[in-house]
Amino acid sequence: MKNFLKIEDFSKEEIDLIFEKIDKVKKDYPSNKNQQNNLSAITFFSEPSTRTRFSFERALSYLKIPVISSSDASGSSSLKKGESFKDTFRTLSQYSDLIVFRHFDEKWVEYAKYSRVPVINAGNGSGEHPTQALLDLYTIKSELGNIENKNVLICGDLKLGRTVHSLIKVLAQNNCKILTCPSILYKHESLPPISLDLPSSYGFYPSIKINEVEDYLEDIDILYMTRTQKERIDEYNTAFFDFFKLDNRTINKLKDKCVILHPLPRNEEISEEVDDDPRSAYHERQIKNGLYTRIALIQYLLQC
Amino acid sequence: MKNFLKIEDFSKEEIDLIFEKIDKVKKDYPSNKNQQNNLSAITFFSEPSTRTRFSFERALSYLKIPVISSSDASGSSSLKKGESFKDTFRTLSQYSDLIVFRHFDEKWVEYAKYSRVPVINAGNGSGEHPTQALLDLYTIKSELGNIENKNVLICGDLKLGRTVHSLIKVLAQNNCKILTCPSILYKHESLPPISLDLPSSYGFYPSIKINEVEDYLEDIDILYMTRTQKERIDEYNTAFFDFFKLDNRTINKLKDKCVILHPLPRNEEISEEVDDDPRSAYHERQIKNGLYTRIALIQYLLQC
Amino acid sequence: MKNFLKIEDFSKEEIDLIFEKIDKVKKDYPSNKNQQNNLSAITFFSEPSTRTRFSFERALSYLKIPVISSSDASGSSSLKKGESFKDTFRTLSQYSDLIVFRHFDEKWVEYAKYSRVPVINAGNGSGEHPTQALLDLYTIKSELGNIENKNVLICGDLKLGRTVHSLIKVLAQNNCKILTCPSILYKHESLPPISLDLPSSYGFYPSIKINEVEDYLEDIDILYMTRTQKERIDEYNTAFFDFFKLDNRTINKLKDKCVILHPLPRNEEISEEVDDDPRSAYHERQIKNGLYTRIALIQYLLQC
Repeated sequence: MKNFLKIEDFSKEEIDLIFEKIDKVKKDYPSNKNQQNNLSAITFFSEPSTRTRFSFERALSYLKIPVISSSDASGSSSLKKGESFKDTFRTLSQYSDLIVFRHFDEKWVEYAKYSRVPVINAGNGSGEHPTQALLDLYTIKSELGNIENKNVLICGDLKLGRTVHSLIKVLAQNNCKILTCPSILYKHESLPPISLDLPSSYGFYPSIKINEVEDYLEDIDILYMTRTQKERIDEYNTAFFDFFKLDNRTINKLKDKCVILHPLPRNEEISEEVDDDPRSAYHERQIKNGLYTRIALIQYLLQC
Repeated sequence: MKNFLKIEDFSKEEIDLIFEKIDKVKKDYPSNKNQQNNLSAITFFSEPSTRTRFSFERALSYLKIPVISSSDASGSSSLKKGESFKDTFRTLSQYSDLIVFRHFDEKWVEYAKYSRVPVINAGNGSGEHPTQALLDLYTIKSELGNIENKNVLICGDLKLGRTVHSLIKVLAQNNCKILTCPSILYKHESLPPISLDLPSSYGFYPSIKINEVEDYLEDIDILYMTRTQKERIDEYNTAFFDFFKLDNRTINKLKDKCVILHPLPRNEEISEEVDDDPRSAYHERQIKNGLYTRIALIQYLLQC
Repeated sequence: MKNFLKIEDFSKEEIDLIFEKIDKVKKDYPSNKNQQNNLSAITFFSEPSTRTRFSFERALSYLKIPVISSSDASGSSSLKKGESFKDTFRTLSQYSDLIVFRHFDEKWVEYAKYSRVPVINAGNGSGEHPTQALLDLYTIKSELGNIENKNVLICGDLKLGRTVHSLIKVLAQNNCKILTCPSILYKHESLPPISLDLPSSYGFYPSIKINEVEDYLEDIDILYMTRTQKERIDEYNTAFFDFFKLDNRTINKLKDKCVILHPLPRNEEISEEVDDDPRSAYHERQIKNGLYTRIALIQYLLQC
C-alpha cells in the first residue's frame, strides 16, 4: 500500500512506469475494458477545485469505481464538529479503497498514515500538489520529447502556489535550470522573504525582476505561469501586487519550441489572445493529460 | 453538436421529435435497455435546485451515464478563484460529454460556445430555464391533447421568474392567448416597469390586476402559477408584495378541463388544499414529466 | 412500504431478521452478487456528516444503486427558496426508490409520510438517529454475544445527543440497566432540567455525578461515550461544561469484557491513548458494523 503525498514518494523508475500507463490510457480513452469491480473511492475536498476534483471523479468513473464525493468537506463533514484528521482518515478508509484529499491545513498530510487505504494529496494548503507536478512533467515530456536539461522560467506566486513547490523538485532532479520571477508582491521590503526550503544543490538561479523577464525569454524551453493566490494573502496589502504578463507582444520573444504551461485557473497573467498559439499547452493538452495522468495513477496505486 | 440554452434552440419539428422520445421513456420507465457506455456528464449548479439537479442526475443514472456533481459550484469550483466562464467551459468539456449548467449570472450562456460538448441551460439567473418550458409544454400536451389556441393565465413573478420567460415564447408560437397577472410588487409606481422584451406579434394581452383575476378564470385553459423570487428582490421593499392565490374558493371558478401548473417550489400562491384536485398537475404529473423530459432531451443531444 | 424514522419502527423480530442480514453482509463484503438494477436513491443531508452519509453512499454503491447526493441540502436545495418538507418529500420520492434524510429541524420526520418511497432518518436535530442505534445494538451483540440484562453507562450529552435517544429505548427493551452521567453543563442550576420523556418503566437509574463515575466502572458491561454537541448549545455559557474522560487511568477500572462504544466524532472525552485497547470497539469494529448495518437495512427496506 502506497500513498502519494509528495512528488518524492515516487522514484524515477516508478514515474517512468506511470508514464507508460498514461501513454496507454491516452491511446485508449474513452474506451476501456475495465469491468464493474468491488472497489470504491472517496474524494474529500475542503478547498475549491475544478480540474482536480472533476478529473479525479472522471478518472474513477472511467475505471468503473464508484465515488463518494465531498466538495465542501470542512463544512459538510465531521471536521466541522471538531473531529481530528486522524479519526477522519481512520473512518473514511473503512468505507473505501482510495482517498483523494484536499484541505487548506498543510499539516493534514502527517495524518494520512492513519488511513488503511492509499491517500492521494490533491492539495495541502500552500504545501504541495504532487498530481499536478506529475501531469506537468508528463506534458513536458509529451511536448518536448524529454525533460532533461531544460531551461525553465516559473513566473508568479512562488511562495503560496503549491503546484510550483512540487514541480520544482522534480525538474531539478532532471537537471533543469530554473529561473523564477516572483510577483512583485513578494519582492517588496515590507513583506517576509521567500523561503522555499530547497537544498542549494537544486541549482537555483537567483530570481529575476519582472522588468528583466523579456531579456531571458529567447532561451526558455518551458515557461510555467501561475496566478497569485489572492485567497491566501488577504493579510497583505495587494497594492504591491504586480506580475509578468504573457500576451501577443511578449510571446513573440519565446523560441518556436517553447512550451507554455499553467496549472490553471488563470487570472490575468496570460492574456486570452495567446490561447491559440501552438506553444500554449495549458488550456487543452495539459488539461487532458491531467485526466490521463490521474487515471494511470489510480491504476498504479490500486493495481487495477 | 447542439446546445440547449433557450427554447428557440429547437424548431417545432425537433420539439415534436423529443416529445415522441418522452412518450417512449414514459412507457418504459424505470426499466431500460441502455448498456454501460463510455459517456460521462457534469452537473454544475451555482444556485439552489431540487427538481432540476435531482431529475437530471436521475435521468443520467437511468441512462447509465456517470455524473460528476457540483451543487455549490460558485463556492466549490475555481470560479471562486476568479476563473472565467470561458475557461470553466473549456475545462469541464474535456472531462465529460455533457454539461448541465446553472448560475445566477445571466451572461454565462454567452460563454457556452467554448464548450466542446453540449451544454444544457438549467437556469441563468432571471434569464431562461428552457428545460422547464419543454416539460411544461409536454405536460400541457399530455393534459389537454394539444397546445394550440389555448387561453393561458400566468400569475406571479413575471419579471424575475425565469421559467415564465422561456415558456411564454413557445406558447405564443402555438397561437395561445396569454394573460398575465403580475404580483402587485411590480405594479407599484415606485418600481421599475416590466419589460419582457417580447415582440408585440406575440399577441400579448395587457396584464390584469390581482382583484380582476376571478373575472377571467372561467375562460382559462392553462393556469400557470409562479412564486415571487424573493431571493432576487432584496433591494425592493417587499411591503408592496401581493399576489393572486389559488385556494378552494377560487379553484371553483376554473373550468373542468383547466390544467393547473407550477414550476415549483411554491410558497403561498397555491394553497395545499387544492393539491388533490384532479386539475392540479403540478405536484405529480408535471414533476414526473420533468424527469421523462430530461431523459429524452439527453438521449436527443447525445444520440444515446 | 416502510420508513425507518425511529428505532420503534422495527419490532424485535424485524431487528433479528436484519441482524441475520448484517451477518451475511459481514461475511461477503466487499464481494457481492448484486446485478445492475433499476433502483436509485437520494441522500439529502442538511447537517455535517462523515460516517452516516459516507457509509450510506458506500452501502448504495455496494448494492449497485446509483445515488443522488446532497451534502448541504438546506443551502443547495429549494428548502432555501422556502419549499416545505411536504413538497420536498413529494418531489424527491418521484426521482428515487429510497430517501436518506438528515435535517436540523426535528419536525421533518412528521412529513416523511408524504414520500412515496421509504425514508430513512439519518438524524433529525436533537431528536433521533435510529440507524446509529441499530448499528450500536448489532455491535453490542457481536462483542458480548447478546444484548440482554447488561449494565450500561452512558456518558456525555444526554440531552442534545440524538444517538443516545434512540439507543436508550432499545436497550431498555432488552432489560438493560442504564446509568447516565451527563456533562456537568446540564447539571448546573441555571440550565434547564433534563427531560428525556421516557416512561419510568424503562428502569432508569438516577444519573450519577462526574466525580462518582469511577466507583461504578467495575460493574459496567457497556460504556457508551458521547461528545458534547457544542454546535447546539451556543446559547449557553460553556464555562459550565465538564465531562467524564476515558483515559489510560480510568480504563483500568473497567472489567476485561467491557465494550467501549462511541458514535463519533469524538472530541476530548476519549483519550487517543486508549484507542488500541481491545475493549475499544468505536474506531474500527463499530464503524465497520455501521457500513454492514446500512447495507442490510437497505436490502430489507427495498427487498433487494
